This record gives sequence, C-alpha cells and structure tokens, in this order.
Amino acid sequence: MPESGLVEVGFVAPDGGRAVRRVRIERGASLLDAAQAAGVGMDATCGARGRCRSCRCKILSGDVSPATMQDTLQLGHEEVQERFRLGCQTRPVTACEVMALPPKSEAGHQILTGAGPAGAAVMDGAGFTLDSGVKKHVVVSNIPREEHHQTSDLAEVLAAVDPPPDRRVPLAVMRKIPQELRKRRGALTVTTFNRQVIDVEAGDASEHAYGMAFDIGTTSIVGTLMHLETGEELAAVGSVNPQTVYGGDLMSRIAYAQFDEKKLVTLRAKVLNAVNGFIKEACANAGVSPGHVYKIVVVGNTCMHHVFLGVDVTYVGLAPYAPAVSDGIVVAAGELPLKAAPNAQVCLLPIVAGFVGADTMACVLATRIHESGALRALVDIGTNGEVVMGSKDRLMACSAPAGPALEGAQIRHGMRGAMGAIEDVRIDDDVHCGVIGQAPAAGICGSGLIDACAKMVGAGVMDASGRMRPRHRDRLPAAVGARLRTTGTGAEFVLVWDADAGKGEDVTLTQGDVRQLQLAKSAIYSGIVMLQRVMGIGDADLAELMLCGGFGNYINIESAVTIRLLPRLPRDRITYVGNAAHLGAQMALLSERERIRAEELVHRIEHVALATHPEFQDIFVDGMAFEGPRSDRPERAAGNARSAAG
Amino acid sequence: MPESGLVEVGFVAPDGGRAVRRVRIERGASLLDAAQAAGVGMDATCGARGRCRSCRCKILSGDVSPATMQDTLQLGHEEVQERFRLGCQTRPVTACEVMALPPKSEAGHQILTGAGPAGAAVMDGAGFTLDSGVKKHVVVSNIPREEHHQTSDLAEVLAAVDPPPDRRVPLAVMRKIPQELRKRRGALTVTTFNRQVIDVEAGDASEHAYGMAFDIGTTSIVGTLMHLETGEELAAVGSVNPQTVYGGDLMSRIAYAQFDEKKLVTLRAKVLNAVNGFIKEACANAGVSPGHVYKIVVVGNTCMHHVFLGVDVTYVGLAPYAPAVSDGIVVAAGELPLKAAPNAQVCLLPIVAGFVGADTMACVLATRIHESGALRALVDIGTNGEVVMGSKDRLMACSAPAGPALEGAQIRHGMRGAMGAIEDVRIDDDVHCGVIGQAPAAGICGSGLIDACAKMVGAGVMDASGRMRPRHRDRLPAAVGARLRTTGTGAEFVLVWDADAGKGEDVTLTQGDVRQLQLAKSAIYSGIVMLQRVMGIGDADLAELMLCGGFGNYINIESAVTIRLLPRLPRDRITYVGNAAHLGAQMALLSERERIRAEELVHRIEHVALATHPEFQDIFVDGMAFEGPRSDRPERAAGNARSAAG
Repeated sequence: MPESGLVEVGFVAPDGGRAVRRVRIERGASLLDAAQAAGVGMDATCGARGRCRSCRCKILSGDVSPATMQDTLQLGHEEVQERFRLGCQTRPVTACEVMALPPKSEAGHQILTGAGPAGAAVMDGAGFTLDSGVKKHVVVSNIPREEHHQTSDLAEVLAAVDPPPDRRVPLAVMRKIPQELRKRRGALTVTTFNRQVIDVEAGDASEHAYGMAFDIGTTSIVGTLMHLETGEELAAVGSVNPQTVYGGDLMSRIAYAQFDEKKLVTLRAKVLNAVNGFIKEACANAGVSPGHVYKIVVVGNTCMHHVFLGVDVTYVGLAPYAPAVSDGIVVAAGELPLKAAPNAQVCLLPIVAGFVGADTMACVLATRIHESGALRALVDIGTNGEVVMGSKDRLMACSAPAGPALEGAQIRHGMRGAMGAIEDVRIDDDVHCGVIGQAPAAGICGSGLIDACAKMVGAGVMDASGRMRPRHRDRLPAAVGARLRTTGTGAEFVLVWDADAGKGEDVTLTQGDVRQLQLAKSAIYSGIVMLQRVMGIGDADLAELMLCGGFGNYINIESAVTIRLLPRLPRDRITYVGNAAHLGAQMALLSERERIRAEELVHRIEHVALATHPEFQDIFVDGMAFEGPRSDRPERAAGNARSAAG
Repeated sequence: MPESGLVEVGFVAPDGGRAVRRVRIERGASLLDAAQAAGVGMDATCGARGRCRSCRCKILSGDVSPATMQDTLQLGHEEVQERFRLGCQTRPVTACEVMALPPKSEAGHQILTGAGPAGAAVMDGAGFTLDSGVKKHVVVSNIPREEHHQTSDLAEVLAAVDPPPDRRVPLAVMRKIPQELRKRRGALTVTTFNRQVIDVEAGDASEHAYGMAFDIGTTSIVGTLMHLETGEELAAVGSVNPQTVYGGDLMSRIAYAQFDEKKLVTLRAKVLNAVNGFIKEACANAGVSPGHVYKIVVVGNTCMHHVFLGVDVTYVGLAPYAPAVSDGIVVAAGELPLKAAPNAQVCLLPIVAGFVGADTMACVLATRIHESGALRALVDIGTNGEVVMGSKDRLMACSAPAGPALEGAQIRHGMRGAMGAIEDVRIDDDVHCGVIGQAPAAGICGSGLIDACAKMVGAGVMDASGRMRPRHRDRLPAAVGARLRTTGTGAEFVLVWDADAGKGEDVTLTQGDVRQLQLAKSAIYSGIVMLQRVMGIGDADLAELMLCGGFGNYINIESAVTIRLLPRLPRDRITYVGNAAHLGAQMALLSERERIRAEELVHRIEHVALATHPEFQDIFVDGMAFEGPRSDRPERAAGNARSAAG
C-alpha cells in the first residue's frame, strides 16, 4: 500500500556509543538511502542489489520491512532472526534505530558480486562456494614439430592443461583447434567444464567466462547473465512466455501439446527462440559475446522443462502425472540448439514430481530449507501452487492446483497485475482502491482480489462463508452499502463506479468471482494444511513460512491470512523471499556444488499427491471459508483489516 | 595370369589312412569346390567367405595359392605356416594332396559369421571375441503409477535394465521414451552401447542389432553391413570416392581444402552423402532398417578421417604433417550427421601420424602383426604407401609418398584398373598383353605397368637403370625390337599396336613413364629398406611381407620383386592379405576389445619420417634401379620373369 510521508532513522555507531545521527527519509526509501543521506559510512559494493554484505546493519528498535531472500542468503538465517539486515533491502516502517556495521571480513564469506576473490568466497553458514565448474586455462601449447614422433594438435593442447582434462573432446572443439593453436603461436585459452574441454581460443581470453540462469515460468521467462568467475550479475532479461498464446495456464498448455508432436514442436520453438533472443539481448547489453557463455542453468516446472527439451508432456497431464525424466540433465547447447558457445553446458535441475518441478527444486536450493534446523514452509503461489515443508531432517512437497483466478482469469473484471489493475482495497465509510500506475481502474488483479475479499469480510460486506449479504446492506456505511447489489446473475459489489473507472462501466466483484477466489485460495491453503497434517505439526511448529515467486511480492500478507490463503502465523514468521526459483538457478550456475546438491536433494523430498489423500476433500471444503473456524467476527476482522491498511 | 586347364586334387582321410579320393577340377576353383565335386565332407558354414573354420584342411603336397588374410585370421599364423588352409580360400596351383579336417571344436573359436553362439566365440590364438559393445535388453518396465512417490518414465526404464546403465541418456532417447514405454504396456527393448543407453523401442526388437564398417580410401569407399550379435556380413557396398573430382590423389585433395573452410565443407558433404547413401543401400539390400544400425566403425587415412569429421586438414599437408587429432574418436551419428540410429556410435580408429592413418591402424589390427613372435612387414601400396614392420616387441611405421603413377596417373597411356586396361605383359618373340575384360587395350594400369617394366628389363628392352636401349634393338627378337623406337620426346615401347588397340593409336610406354614408375616404386621400396635399417634387420629376418589394400591384389608379386618395388624375399614369404583395413574395421565393429586395443597399440607404433632421415636420400636413389645392385643380369631376370608368367 503506497503511503507517503517521512520516517526517521537514527544511526548508532558500531562501537555502541550513543552518538546517534538522525535523518528523515521518504517512506519507501531504504536504510542504505538513509545512511547515504545521513553521511553514515555504508558501502554498496554490489550496487544495492542485495548481492554482497557491504551494507550490513542491525535493527536496534522500530519496525522495518520483512527480511528478503537476499538478507537470508547474504547473512544467514540466524543473523536475520537477530535482526541483522542488508541496508539496501530494508525499508523503515516506523521510526527506528540502526547500527551500520563494517562488513564482516569478506574472506570466508559469500560474494555473489565482483567484490572478492573468485573461488575462495564462501557464503557464511550456508557454505556457498563460487565454483561454476567452468575454468579457463591460459596455456602455451606446443605446435607439433617433430616429424618422427608426431603428436597431434589436440594432444599438444591437452598436454598443456593442468589438471589433465578428459581426452574425449567435442567435435566443435576439434574443428577449432588447428587454427586457434596457430593464431598466437600456441598461446591459447582452453575452457573446461569439470574435466571436459568445451572451448579453445587463441590468446588469453580468460576474462570472458559467462553463464546464464533462466527461470522459464508458465507465464514469464526471466534470465540473468552472470560472470562465472566473480559472480557478478551483468544483465537481466525477461518477458511474458510467448507460449501464452497457446494457453495461459499450465493445464491448457499441456492439453495443447498432448498427443500431438507437431504442437509440441511449436511450443518448443517459441521457448527456444525466446531464450535465444534473451541470450543475445543480455550479451549485447553487457557487451560480451554469446560465444563466451559456457554454462546455462534452466529451471521451470515439469511442463516447461519437458517442452524446452522437446520431451512429450502427454503423460504429465494424465494421472499419475509423472514426469518423463526427472534426473538433472546436462546437454550441450548445440544439441538444443541454444546460441551460446557450441559446447556450453545447459544444465536443468531435477524434478520432484509432475507438478513439483525443477523451479521448486531451485526454490529449495535458494531458501536452504534442507539445511534448516527449524521447520519451515516454502509456498509458491501461482496457477499451480507448490508447497515444500520441513527441515534438514525431512522434506515434503505437494502441488496445489489453484487455477488461474489469482492471475485474474475467470474473474469478471479480472486482469493481470498491469497498469489500471486494482491492487489494494481499503473500506471505511466508503471503498478506496489503489490502482497500479495511479490510472483509472480497468479491472482487478490477483493481489487486489485477495485484498478486496479480506476487506469485504472485515467490513461485513460478506460473511466468512464468502456469501455477499445484500439484504444486510443497511448495516453498512451508506456509501458502502450502495455498492452491494443484486443482479440477474447474483450479488455483486462495486469497487469503482463507472465515473472513476477506465472502461465505461462499474468495476465490480461478483459472487461468482468470490467463489473462484475461494477455490484457488483453498487449494493453496489445503496444500499447506495437508503437509502439516502428514508431518504431524501445527502452526506453532512452523518457524517460518516463505512466500516466493512473482506473485508473492504483491500480495498483502495480512489480507492473505484473513482470507485463509495462508495460515494464521505471527506476522514476522511470514516472509517474502523473492524469485527464489531464479535465485536457485543462479546458485546452481555459480556453484557446481549447489547443482549437484540438487541431484541428491531431489531424492530426499517426499511428494504428497493431494487429490489421492483420503483427508484432502474435507480439508479443501473447510479451506473454502474465510477467517478460519472463528466465523463471523466482523469487528475483529475489520480491526485487522484496518491495521493492515495502516 | 588366367590359365585354363584342369588340376588334380587328392583328398586324404583325416585319420591319416591312405584312402585317397581324387578329383580333377578347373584351375581357379577352390579346394572346397574340389571337395564338393569329390563328395568329400567339407562344410561351408559361412557360405565360402572365409569367415568360419568349417572347411579347414591341411596341404600335404603340391602348390596352392598363397594364404589369404582369412586363412590367417581363422587359423592363426602358426597353422598357416604348417600349411593348414581354409578350403574356400585356397586354389590348387599344381596337383596336390589335401587332408580335409573336421573343424576344431567351434566352442572357443572365432566365428565371424552366424555359425556360433554370440559372445562366446573366440578366435583361436588371436583371442578374438564377438563383443560389439551393443546390447539389446528385452525388459518389461513399469509405467509410473504412483501419484505420491512418482518415478519418471526414464527412471522406470533404467531400473529394468541389468546391469544398470549410465543414468545420463541422450536427448533423442528421452524424447522416445514416453510413447515407446506405453505402446506395449511397458514391454521394451533397450539398446546400450557399453554402459550408455542409445535407443528404446516398444516390444521385443532384440533381433535387430546391426553395424557397419567403412574404409574410406582416397580412391574408393567400401562398407559392409554386419549383424552385431552373430557377426554375419549382410551386405557389402562401395564405389569410387566422390571426392575424386576435387583431386585424384591425397596431396591434391589436401591442397584443395587447405586454408579454405568452404572447400572442406564441400569435400565433407561428398563423403557424408556417400556414406549415408551406403547405409541406406546396404540396409535396403539386407532388408533391415537404418534405425537399427547402432555402431559404425570408420577407418581411412588422416585426410579422409579429418574431412569426414570436418576437421581442418591444412596442417596435415604442411611439415611436420601432424594430424589435428589422433586419438580414437566416438561420436553420435546424429552429430555428423549419419542417418543410422540417432545415437548410433560412430567410432574412428586412432591415427599414427599424418600419413599413417586409421586405415593403417586397422591393417595392424587385422594382421595381428603386434602379436607376432617373428618379424613381419605390412605394406599398403597406394598413392601414399604405408609400411609397418615389427613384431610383438617393437613396431615401426612410415609412409612412402609413391605418387599417383601406380594408379595410372602421369603415365601417357595410364588408366585405372578398369575394362580395357593392360594388366599383365608377357614378352617372348613378341609382346603379349592381358587386358581387363579381354577388351581392346585402351591403356595401362598400375599392375600392368609393373609387369611391363619387369618383363622389359627381363627381355633386355631396357637396362637395370630403367633406360630404354633403342640402339640395341637389333639384339632383341625382331617383333620386339620393332616396338622400341625414339620419338621427339624420347624413347618409347609399343605394347599394343594401334590395329589391336581400342583407341586408334599405339599403346606405348615412354621413357618418362618408366621414370615415373621408378620414383613411385622406389618410394615404397625405400620405406621398407629404411625401416629394416632403423630396426637393424635384413631380408632374412623378415618372416613375412604382407601386401594389403586393393592394389596389392592385382600386382604380379614376382614382377614387383623384379623391379624392386618389393625386396627379394623367398616367394612364399610374400603374401597378399586382402583389404586388411576394411577387415580391421570389421573387427573393431564386432569387438570392443579390438577397438580398444587399437587405442593402446597406436602408442606403441614408432613413426619414422623418411624424408627427415639422413640416410633416406641415398636409399631412395639406390632404390630407383631395377633388379638390385646386381645390375644388368638380363638372363637371370628373364628367367625369373618367365617362371612368374608360367
């Protein structure tokens, strides 16, 4: 909820002395901004992207925004619990006091950016090592010159590399060797991935070792270009998944390609072209050559993964919804083909189940839930939601078929979260909607839908079962009650009158829309409850519930709890961890240890198929209601809604 | 030299009793033909192709044709020395007595044909095992059916194969699995090469496991389709190498593609298209699917090898003539692409040196010179001749740049060994030429050239230095002397008068032609002598000189000795061993042990670069002369020539 105004931050010296330097900043600015405004020394080595530890600080008092994924990755879970934060990631909510700290000695700590020596950088606690598997060896190789005991060009090149690489070399490399070897009289850069030679170039080209991490989602594709030696992010690219024209959600995408090889080819061409375009674009933006992109990590749900490889998705869409392949995969770029170095290694993370894909695996990697002492849950809200729950001792996962309501589909005035979408709703004497881009309202997006329902329950516009109560409209403030009406197709609630709307008609939420939202949110909620049930744990046992994925960023967490999309945990135990799938892909890109870890981890994750579980039906029906079993407490709910809106 | 008439063969019973059964057969027929005519029990399990031992016999008296490659391969070198032979390979030269033997127990013996159980067959002495590395596993695989603990299609397929194959599976196989797995409710044939899965097919397709062996020569390409389980040869294909239009001999082929990537692509397309055509043709002839061809072994000289792979040959043509790659190579057919099973394994044998290629390596394999107790030499006569010499203790190799004279190039009336080519020459009171196809003479081929020179020296038409002696023509028989004349460009000798020729002019051999032949034959001869010199051995130490390659089949060995193309060894120590390169390729196709052996062997072979050797110039000049240092002994030489012609 955008809110203007100033907020005060006081900086305490690291020696603990009480010489406080105070500054007032715009609400929404970061602690780093505040430190810079206050003239307090706080570095931003990575450019304020949450990729280094140079702006580390400790919150001594006051409220700040929830810890992000970057906080946890850079500082470790324990420090975050102790209210250490990255200044660049943290926004003050109330007046607060902060101690800006000199970064811990960089040696021995993780650096995802160019701040430290490659390879030696290890993430504190989490044990992250920068080791992409790609190495560029600058060598001076002999050119064969003995007629009697002739060595081959290749043998001379291999002999110059230490440690000795695999003798089996891809054809494309063989084809380059004779010329590259002689361009600079034997001075060569030999690129290896693990033990395999994947490129040779004349001269010293050791600086140029790049990789890309892609998260191919049903809705969108995002990618980043990274320097493999320094971990620096050089460019970010992304767009809507161009396959969307063949079906917006996962099941319709699968249905399109099912039993039809040609349609699979069509879908595949769309995603390959897009990824190839992104490689080109990212490299152009960063001023590097796609021929120097040597490793590409791809994550995505099972359908996106299979389509990317050209593997039949027919049976992913039929019970028991098993993937065709689930192991981690490494293929040469030329085989797909991706237009990077011809022998760039394209690595796909492993898959847990048909609807718990490589993207979820990447989220697990990124959130380190597999190393957690405490029980935690990871929730990716989407058309198909995924829930992972557990700790280092046991991990379970399920998929929750929420359907596309949260993306605005099947909602009368539903739309994606774009310009003109209602994204938050406040109800007092009347209804006040926040619209993306401050434009006239054209419709409502998923986060707006959640917020609207939460506030409508809170205001008594509808009851906890989701039923609108037009007959009780006189109990509502007049302006609110005027919005609740009955039409030929049932009850509806006007969020924005046509005079203020951007589409010449009232923007309403219908009784049917509410039912769609209830189905969607109950699916996610039931997934969480089901895993709790199977693991035998209650809400109190969950130390943290982490929201990830693009959607999680936009929802009002209090509203999500109110409508029972999320369980009623203390607010500080629900965190938003960003695009963890993409971050996991980046980790696997920069660290073979992480990539290999995923191969082991996947066998530890127990998949729970919701639909086949005997208790699921009851949990799902119970989950349809808003505001828990304590139904019909409008005053309390309204209070909650107001405090959330505040 | 074709000679008609009958020859008598007596068959002695295997118990050594003297009950001889005699039969008279056409000269040129085999001992197997004789046995069948005589009603003597002699099997031909392999169809008289020298690929089994069922017609094994021992020559007790009389002369027979020299032992072939097949004799040596099937019986081993020792038995051949003791005059054991294969009946199907052996033709009586004089009346002889033969003991037909029951084949040695087949168990434990080599079978290159369908006669015995696959895998258990071991070649006697030589240790040949039928083990192509390709295995077809007929399995019943589960189709994933558990929603909770989902296995993937691939995991189920791999779990059904014993021993467990490599989990890394080619993309093309992944793409086939979902459908093939379900076509016959999980009944599958999984094909592996060593530990790698290379194909899956619904149902039981275990019968269909084929491979091809190719010898890609500068001049011609030959290939055979074989059953990998039985070793049976199913089809043979071959033609002139279509690259010939870009240069007939090796050096001009290299020169064409040197420093010009596009021309390399052109050459490569020619050979790939040809090989793909042969795969299609051979499979059509045998009624099998190219999709069931799982292993392809390719041998060829370094230039052909590199061009086949698309590797630059520029530096193969420049001192020190080193190959770009020399290790054995295995690539997937789809990478080249060859149109066999997409993951058929294309195996190229290793290379010794720029001009001692994978074809020579195959000859070494096939002749088992590396296992020989006695010193032996292997000579492949061609535009570029190769010589390998040694025993199990030490092996040396060199290449002898003979040039194209022996293929009829740079010879005024030279031509390939085709219809109308003079292939043998006899001189008595006049000159008598044997012409291929009994057609009117159109020119002279390499074997005819050798024979003509030998006979001309023998008859005194020219001296041992190769100089024609028109002024001494009155010492020759009148009809012969009339053929020796001087023209504006020097002396020449008419082999066929225009009245009998097929081209409206005299077919002659010029002084220049003789010089070209001398350069060519001295190159080969000097190679042999040089290796003897480096190894410190004389003619008496050479237990055998084996001629291989297409050309070796046609030359008159006595004439080759007379002109000092070959050293003066006792006649029975010079043998023709057939297309050993192709046989070696077949061995590597049918036996991984043989293929891997080549990888080890290549490091044991010492390469001697003739041109850089200080003694080479003298040896080469000395080698120009005919009939050794004992120059000018026309009577003796004539005697030799006559006995050879008899």
